[in-house]
Amino acid sequence: MNTQASFQVLGICGSLRQKSFNMAALRTAGELMPAGLKLRITGIGDLPIYNFDVQEKGFPASVTKLRDEILAADALLFASPEYNWSVGAPLKNAIDWMSRFQPQPFNNKPAAVLSATGGPLGGARGQYDLRRILDGLGVHWLAKPEIFIGMAQSKFGPDGKLNDEPTRKIMTDQMTAFEDWIKRMKRAFA
Amino acid sequence: MNTQASFQVLGICGSLRQKSFNMAALRTAGELMPAGLKLRITGIGDLPIYNFDVQEKGFPASVTKLRDEILAADALLFASPEYNWSVGAPLKNAIDWMSRFQPQPFNNKPAAVLSATGGPLGGARGQYDLRRILDGLGVHWLAKPEIFIGMAQSKFGPDGKLNDEPTRKIMTDQMTAFEDWIKRMKRAFA
Amino acid sequence: MNTQASFQVLGICGSLRQKSFNMAALRTAGELMPAGLKLRITGIGDLPIYNFDVQEKGFPASVTKLRDEILAADALLFASPEYNWSVGAPLKNAIDWMSRFQPQPFNNKPAAVLSATGGPLGGARGQYDLRRILDGLGVHWLAKPEIFIGMAQSKFGPDGKLNDEPTRKIMTDQMTAFEDWIKRMKRAFA
Amino acid sequence: MNTQASFQVLGICGSLRQKSFNMAALRTAGELMPAGLKLRITGIGDLPIYNFDVQEKGFPASVTKLRDEILAADALLFASPEYNWSVGAPLKNAIDWMSRFQPQPFNNKPAAVLSATGGPLGGARGQYDLRRILDGLGVHWLAKPEIFIGMAQSKFGPDGKLNDEPTRKIMTDQMTAFEDWIKRMKRAFA
Repeated sequence: MNTQASFQVLGICGSLRQKSFNMAALRTAGELMPAGLKLRITGIGDLPIYNFDVQEKGFPASVTKLRDEILAADALLFASPEYNWSVGAPLKNAIDWMSRFQPQPFNNKPAAVLSATGGPLGGARGQYDLRRILDGLGVHWLAKPEIFIGMAQSKFGPDGKLNDEPTRKIMTDQMTAFEDWIKRMKRAFA
Repeated sequence: MNTQASFQVLGICGSLRQKSFNMAALRTAGELMPAGLKLRITGIGDLPIYNFDVQEKGFPASVTKLRDEILAADALLFASPEYNWSVGAPLKNAIDWMSRFQPQPFNNKPAAVLSATGGPLGGARGQYDLRRILDGLGVHWLAKPEIFIGMAQSKFGPDGKLNDEPTRKIMTDQMTAFEDWIKRMKRAFA
Repeated sequence: MNTQASFQVLGICGSLRQKSFNMAALRTAGELMPAGLKLRITGIGDLPIYNFDVQEKGFPASVTKLRDEILAADALLFASPEYNWSVGAPLKNAIDWMSRFQPQPFNNKPAAVLSATGGPLGGARGQYDLRRILDGLGVHWLAKPEIFIGMAQSKFGPDGKLNDEPTRKIMTDQMTAFEDWIKRMKRAFA
Repeated sequence: MNTQASFQVLGICGSLRQKSFNMAALRTAGELMPAGLKLRITGIGDLPIYNFDVQEKGFPASVTKLRDEILAADALLFASPEYNWSVGAPLKNAIDWMSRFQPQPFNNKPAAVLSATGGPLGGARGQYDLRRILDGLGVHWLAKPEIFIGMAQSKFGPDGKLNDEPTRKIMTDQMTAFEDWIKRMKRAFA
């Protein structure tokens, strides 16, 4: 495989908050990616709440735009906060909209997942729900290393910089494993 | 306990679709309730997508209104569709907003849960996620009988009437158990 | 309620290992209990693997003994290791056996749950599965505070003593909340 | 790829009961497999309950034998009953033992999963737990079609024959998809 090959990774952050730790983590992952991966982050804040009656009148432009971005990407990187012991509504909403397209935009996309929270578990409950949700849509996500950034406020600076070295290390490891995973999934589903 | 006692049950439907099977199921549950329960159904379709930055500027009126309805109710009845193997975004969004109030409006509320889907599992995956989510918020939900209405299109008429007798029977049973459950939880958390 | 009242708590440890961190945590919980709770720890290591064909010939004595201990207890305290992202086989085996009795020995028992693991999540994945499993059996478990003792080897001494003060504090808090919870559940299901 | 190529599939049934519906389903899957798959069913009933102290003295022969069978197989087919809303103890026990070997015998094995129960959900709760458990061990399982055989007693004859045509059809579909999946995973992890 050409070592110059570059995979376009679409980053999706589940928090709409401007100073989101998950957005900061997503940006950091982009910086720590190996040369073969390129991250572009999209937004999901302008999607309306999912409603079948709205869908029937035609997919909103913001929804179709996200669909096209997913289709164009080689792989997906999700940064998911945990709200109330599960996936937050904004990310679930984007996924629920995407799932309504035929063919499925998520189908056979390689993905990686990370999460950051203020509490000690680092989003584990939400991340396992997210994985199951993505399973149902044909996403092939990287199982390990897992990244649960707990106590996020102690690890990120006010500028959003990730200062915690062990977390930077595991993110680097995950991104290296992600590149390998994308290659394998491309081979499997070529 | 006074047999005339009437508990106000707030019904929350997770689907925003007008012809929602879950809304039809919720209305049916209201009809099948014992005399001691009174159902009033609220709406969650006008809540914006949860965003901490929006919250910081002040809770939207639709959010505060839902909070007040929950606080005023004796108990909650959730009818939850399943989107993508988990709770749908509209219901998760309402819950995520509610969880941001102090004190928690959901805390120590008795609840019951039902779900209807077009597929064979009747929303089981979503309903177990919902139960866990509600656990985190201090809701005390009735564990049995469980109601998973699979193949909903074959059980409801075009007018939303539930024609399936076994399902009507188990809903009646659940509502009877729900009244007993509310009394017990009121006793426990008086 | 008589303040001298003492509730008998049956402790069940999911690990069969002699130097189990979960057993050490269970013993510590017993020491930190308020005066109204008394812990007695039972064993589950001598139960055979669940097999319906064995059950049909008659419940083994070790199984019946555990059933009787559960029936005699006012409440249950589970210390559950996590094996492979879920409940370990020994504890699941004990629960699977118990569930075969009629009436259900677990039904309406108040319970609390804690878990300890060598990894950072402290058994969260297993503990949420355990909670769902117990829901199906009519157990009423205390939802908060939750106890996930991660990096257990750094918190317990070689003698099994829990040296980590924050963990001792939250265990004390959980045991205090547990006593209150038992009283409430006794009131609800009297 | 050589169309004569034959993949050896190791079948693992989670129930130890002689007249197990899951064993009947597993055998049926073997009959309905395409020519490129060959099923051999192993047993897990003679493994002791997992105990680290036993492991330290040396893996029991029954445990090592199962490990060798897994290593020798091209792929795995799990038939999992659901006990108490999760994976049954016998299957979890076999998995817990296997996970203790280095290298991991399950790592990068393609797999498929099916479940049968007497109730209406057909083992969904247990099957989703099983999938997560297998994720942690590096198994790559086929996500769709899913097979949840509910009301099993009405679908299997007393001789264990699967008489329900829709279920036979979806099993045939799953086995066809499984062969394709094994080829893809072999390509990805060659």
